[in-house]
Amino acid sequence: TTGTVTLVGGGPGRTDLLTLAGQAALADADVVLFDRLGPQESLADLAPGARLIDVGKAPGHHPIPQPEIEAMLIEHARAGAHVVRLKGGDPFVFGRGSEEVRACARAGVPVTVVPGVSSAIAVPGAAGIPVTHRGLSRSLTIVSGHVPFEPQEYAHLHGVGGTLVILMGVNTLIQVCTGLLRAGMPPDVPLALVERGFLPGQRTTVTTVAEVVRRGGMQHATSPAVVVIGAVVALAESSVWEDLARTVEGAA
Amino acid sequence: TTGTVTLVGGGPGRTDLLTLAGQAALADADVVLFDRLGPQESLADLAPGARLIDVGKAPGHHPIPQPEIEAMLIEHARAGAHVVRLKGGDPFVFGRGSEEVRACARAGVPVTVVPGVSSAIAVPGAAGIPVTHRGLSRSLTIVSGHVPFEPQEYAHLHGVGGTLVILMGVNTLIQVCTGLLRAGMPPDVPLALVERGFLPGQRTTVTTVAEVVRRGGMQHATSPAVVVIGAVVALAESSVWEDLARTVEGAA
Repeated sequence: TTGTVTLVGGGPGRTDLLTLAGQAALADADVVLFDRLGPQESLADLAPGARLIDVGKAPGHHPIPQPEIEAMLIEHARAGAHVVRLKGGDPFVFGRGSEEVRACARAGVPVTVVPGVSSAIAVPGAAGIPVTHRGLSRSLTIVSGHVPFEPQEYAHLHGVGGTLVILMGVNTLIQVCTGLLRAGMPPDVPLALVERGFLPGQRTTVTTVAEVVRRGGMQHATSPAVVVIGAVVALAESSVWEDLARTVEGAA
Repeated sequence: TTGTVTLVGGGPGRTDLLTLAGQAALADADVVLFDRLGPQESLADLAPGARLIDVGKAPGHHPIPQPEIEAMLIEHARAGAHVVRLKGGDPFVFGRGSEEVRACARAGVPVTVVPGVSSAIAVPGAAGIPVTHRGLSRSLTIVSGHVPFEPQEYAHLHGVGGTLVILMGVNTLIQVCTGLLRAGMPPDVPLALVERGFLPGQRTTVTTVAEVVRRGGMQHATSPAVVVIGAVVALAESSVWEDLARTVEGAA
């Protein structure tokens, strides 16, 4: 009999930010396909009966092509396995989860999705930055920065007027900040880069959109990193939020 | 000695979408302030040692004013309690969590935040709608619909060109759809209303932005509901996704 595929949103990477449903799926798994974005450290404990397969795309290493990952999911499920595809954050936020679900469904393999804590929301919070704050930000726009945008897109990204969160945005950060400034964003709009959110070595750098361009980017930024642009970033600079950031860090 | 306040993102309402960290905070709680948006059903089991205080704002009932909730958090913590403020979704997505954190920090009460699964992302997924899909949507904008927008805001919300998710958007849905159409959104852009996501009686209605206006809104829509506008909604209509939606529903 055919097995199943369960896409599990693993959250930003700290084990205790996994959901109970995600934990249950891993406990029951025969095979787990994981990558560098989900919780990895305690994976052997979380999925004691599973074969663990690293399909990660570490920068500089040869990635497993997406169609091959999808073929692996289907192949193991057809062999009768409970397969968990463990992903960072939420499976439907730039994780290609939608493609994996469609591939399974088309192949007749039962597939379910366990949502996860999105790094786009949680990682700014770990740095003391609330993505929305009454009176400061009424919207949150989450984008992938893997390629830069068109001029008209910058106008709207700025025009929406709320908080802008960029995932996978380190490599294109100069272009994106330049585009936003050309679209009329004031140069002193605060920008935060949060590296390794919720993980050992978490680091927050607060600057401005113009300063990023002037300095030629954020040197030495390490992946994974989340970029936050907007008035809410200023809350992280107040002493209240510095205390909070320390507390949150201490709890991690 | 002063206690602590922990804001816990409870996710969309199904108990198993709580995080392990959220579960641990509840297990350790002396006092839990909850409302109608978080997981309620098994709260007595999750927090067996806690006094449970409903600060919910059920429609039509007298809500507890926000400053009073903040005063309660501080008062119980000062009395030495481990206080959990259990919120629906993630505490920093339109939950006034940021205000509660600031109130505690200003009062000198140690406060930490446990992020949660945001309904803005997870509830569309429960209906088979991925908020991003390669080639269809490169951005996700999350807004609160509690009051309508200005004309210029609609232009940008439409112009960003990705997926638009509206929380608390049932009451203003006609105005918002009218505003988006006036800003140039094509009338046939698909719109989904997902009621009671992940809860018994989950229901998805798929229509178009123009149809909402023509019909004078979505009658009989029940809160909580999440509105999704954009090309990704069409994925929910394909048979592949109908199967998925059934599977996901069956798992719930």
